Amino acid sequence: MFGKMAYGGTIALTVGVVAVEHLHAPTLVLFAVAALALVGLAWVLGQATESLGHHAGPRIGGILNATFGNAAELIITIFALAEGLTTVVKASIIGSIIGNVLLVLGASILLGGLKNGVQSFSVEIAGINASMLAIVAAALSLPTIFAVTNPGPNPTNLSIEVAVVMFVLYILYLLYILRSPEGTATAEGGEAPFGRIASLLLLFVATAAVAYVSEAFVGAIEPLTEEYGISELFVGVILVPIVGNIAEHVVGVQIAYKNNMDFSMGISLGSSIQVALLVTPLLVFLGPLLGHPLRLSFTTLELAALGAAVVVTGFVALDGKSNWLEGAMLCGVYVIAALAFFFS
Amino acid sequence: MFGKMAYGGTIALTVGVVAVEHLHAPTLVLFAVAALALVGLAWVLGQATESLGHHAGPRIGGILNATFGNAAELIITIFALAEGLTTVVKASIIGSIIGNVLLVLGASILLGGLKNGVQSFSVEIAGINASMLAIVAAALSLPTIFAVTNPGPNPTNLSIEVAVVMFVLYILYLLYILRSPEGTATAEGGEAPFGRIASLLLLFVATAAVAYVSEAFVGAIEPLTEEYGISELFVGVILVPIVGNIAEHVVGVQIAYKNNMDFSMGISLGSSIQVALLVTPLLVFLGPLLGHPLRLSFTTLELAALGAAVVVTGFVALDGKSNWLEGAMLCGVYVIAALAFFFS
Amino acid sequence: MFGKMAYGGTIALTVGVVAVEHLHAPTLVLFAVAALALVGLAWVLGQATESLGHHAGPRIGGILNATFGNAAELIITIFALAEGLTTVVKASIIGSIIGNVLLVLGASILLGGLKNGVQSFSVEIAGINASMLAIVAAALSLPTIFAVTNPGPNPTNLSIEVAVVMFVLYILYLLYILRSPEGTATAEGGEAPFGRIASLLLLFVATAAVAYVSEAFVGAIEPLTEEYGISELFVGVILVPIVGNIAEHVVGVQIAYKNNMDFSMGISLGSSIQVALLVTPLLVFLGPLLGHPLRLSFTTLELAALGAAVVVTGFVALDGKSNWLEGAMLCGVYVIAALAFFFS
Repeated sequence: MFGKMAYGGTIALTVGVVAVEHLHAPTLVLFAVAALALVGLAWVLGQATESLGHHAGPRIGGILNATFGNAAELIITIFALAEGLTTVVKASIIGSIIGNVLLVLGASILLGGLKNGVQSFSVEIAGINASMLAIVAAALSLPTIFAVTNPGPNPTNLSIEVAVVMFVLYILYLLYILRSPEGTATAEGGEAPFGRIASLLLLFVATAAVAYVSEAFVGAIEPLTEEYGISELFVGVILVPIVGNIAEHVVGVQIAYKNNMDFSMGISLGSSIQVALLVTPLLVFLGPLLGHPLRLSFTTLELAALGAAVVVTGFVALDGKSNWLEGAMLCGVYVIAALAFFFS
Repeated sequence: MFGKMAYGGTIALTVGVVAVEHLHAPTLVLFAVAALALVGLAWVLGQATESLGHHAGPRIGGILNATFGNAAELIITIFALAEGLTTVVKASIIGSIIGNVLLVLGASILLGGLKNGVQSFSVEIAGINASMLAIVAAALSLPTIFAVTNPGPNPTNLSIEVAVVMFVLYILYLLYILRSPEGTATAEGGEAPFGRIASLLLLFVATAAVAYVSEAFVGAIEPLTEEYGISELFVGVILVPIVGNIAEHVVGVQIAYKNNMDFSMGISLGSSIQVALLVTPLLVFLGPLLGHPLRLSFTTLELAALGAAVVVTGFVALDGKSNWLEGAMLCGVYVIAALAFFFS
Repeated sequence: MFGKMAYGGTIALTVGVVAVEHLHAPTLVLFAVAALALVGLAWVLGQATESLGHHAGPRIGGILNATFGNAAELIITIFALAEGLTTVVKASIIGSIIGNVLLVLGASILLGGLKNGVQSFSVEIAGINASMLAIVAAALSLPTIFAVTNPGPNPTNLSIEVAVVMFVLYILYLLYILRSPEGTATAEGGEAPFGRIASLLLLFVATAAVAYVSEAFVGAIEPLTEEYGISELFVGVILVPIVGNIAEHVVGVQIAYKNNMDFSMGISLGSSIQVALLVTPLLVFLGPLLGHPLRLSFTTLELAALGAAVVVTGFVALDGKSNWLEGAMLCGVYVIAALAFFFS
């Protein structure tokens, strides 16, 4: 029932984007319709990936999730990069990570805690995720510190080499998922919603639609920031990641509400790790081809928010217990970060 | 016995402040007598709050402790803000937090460890406190990073909005205390030292006396820094928090000495959280009314000390064990921070 | 068998340094031969210390290890300081710490995990080491933040006072080792390889040889950086610590391979703590005597790498479990840091 309405709504919104574009509607309308369409399409993409994973078995399914899980976000940021919006692209990398660990994990802990009281989770799994998150945050931070202290002309080289290291770590991460007996913690079994061919077809159609709508969405960013005085940093850190991830976020919160904190943390922290290790290097590699090299140099505010998010998440994760107050505090830090980016 | 002497001494010192003021004694004498009187009055305030809490039951008692626990410090900083000493006020916010987590927790672990060997405590309670401390530190840091990178005219707005978020988190914190079955960990039961009316009266008298002496104390800060070349940062970070909190600190150390590390950590970390979530927003709200808006932008050294204190405390707390060497190291970091602030 | 070859090779290399110096061979050759000789001599020094420890009993042995464990590195940096290479000296302090916690611990966890699957270790011991590491990192960072924000003339005073505090903490650390029943975790018992007098003699001869070769090694640094354009920062952060510590590193990795993670972490984290608490203050004290006062002000990149290493290690350590992926990620962060320092 919900499924059918969601597919219908997504199709309507995608068609709406085409219509709005041809009617030359105001930028804000185009931006809003495209954003809503992307929310739906990201969800469809997730459904197609999951269905294909069902047919391919848990191992390949785990890898499919680990590669296509952030596909919508990757496509949006590629189009933004092609438009030369490097500030938005870099901001959305950071925003995606802090959104996952502050807002999504926070909302999960808050609602899960209000429903279930103090929630327990495996310190081992949470600890590995928190460690890996800290490691990728360190990897993202060091080139920036370098860029700030060495304002010379060649940091692009360093960015590409760092991206190579991160991509190698991503390959190792996939190997780890393949080698580990249980794959990544997958959702409760059930039936694949589509056949093998239908899943594959849906994946291609949804990807194409995401690409089309992303172009419209990204094209509206610059006029929007100019007309309404919203900073590119705010669009990148807050709006783009929410559009690209919200479907996944809702799932993470629902699972916490069902008191499966291990799986819920796996979604939010795993998605952050993926953005850092897969999306970021791909964007760095594609940059020169698209005529807009992407240097891994973030703003101080971005790095501070990232560092704060990582330390806070680590501390929340490493005691193996969570309560609703911790969730509310994580959301509070996200709101404070959003305020700071809004005024930037 | 000790109680009577302490009350007597506090009265004598408070009268002493009046005398010293009228005799126009040297600034250093006024500063010292007022500081000692405040130490005593903060202790009396704590006694009155606790006694009132006994009559009101554990839940209301927990809330009374959570609101009046840092009353002396709040009053001192309000007077400092009214005098326009914003540097001192901001420094004392940071100083109160790092004093609690480095000096008080350090001394507790050091003396507790020398007496009792390796001490254990609940990872769960310590973990929640450490998480919340990290979260409030993040909340305090982000507006500063913003202020440093956006040197425009409007950070006051951001400070007020951040203060609203922090105050909302404080209300949630109070709700959490009310909802949790055992309230905050309270001290061993025993009898209320005063009747209900006497407790209330003592609370009012002590508060009035703190206000009077605070004015004298704060008035002596500026001449003191000018005459003796002590930096305002040092006064704010080191001296003001010690004066406002030392009575509470002694209690925390005593409890660790009695091998109740859970309660001892609750006092030192809980007090830090309160300063961040209650004292700080109140000062931001009062600033414009007092003619001295308080911007939440701290110095790099203040933020570095805060960050170091939070990470160090988290690591000490999250393994569930402490030994005297860890305590000595925490005190050592405090001494190093104090040296850095002294030379500033 | 290995032992005899190692001693023979070390003697040959040490003689080689003398030969190369008198033949006025190219700088790169001298640097390479001296580096290899130092690797061997550091290993001999370790063997002599351990053998002497066998004769002196576990307590004194623990103290010998805690003082002579970084003797080779101390001697190299003293000669570098005497040459006025303060950049190299400070870089090698940071490099030694991050090398131990990222590269050595990373390689240990990677190889140990590939051999033994998920490895467990005592959260208590790892937690104390991680806490102490965070504390010494904080102690190293604060004077830098001070120096950056107060660019006045007197930071040397602060450096000396901070060094005094760190040295006092080191004395307490030795007392802790003496008081703790089991001493530091020592290697598997076995026989002392040399007699008491032979051990002592070997210690003196090896120390003298390290001093001689260090002078040649350090003398080659400046021409090397000028001829080949390698930054002093890279030499200090990456090359010097590897030369001074590699023998010890190999031991740490071997022990992890044998699935004794507690002892392996003790070596890598313990060595970092020693560099911070013993080597650093000694260099600060010796600076004025050698005519080159050493100010404890590190570069932003150095501090960022240190902070990242400490947080990452803490998170890896505090969950009590490690897997090969975490090890690979730690090594990846080291490679990224090395790249950043290389381009500096």
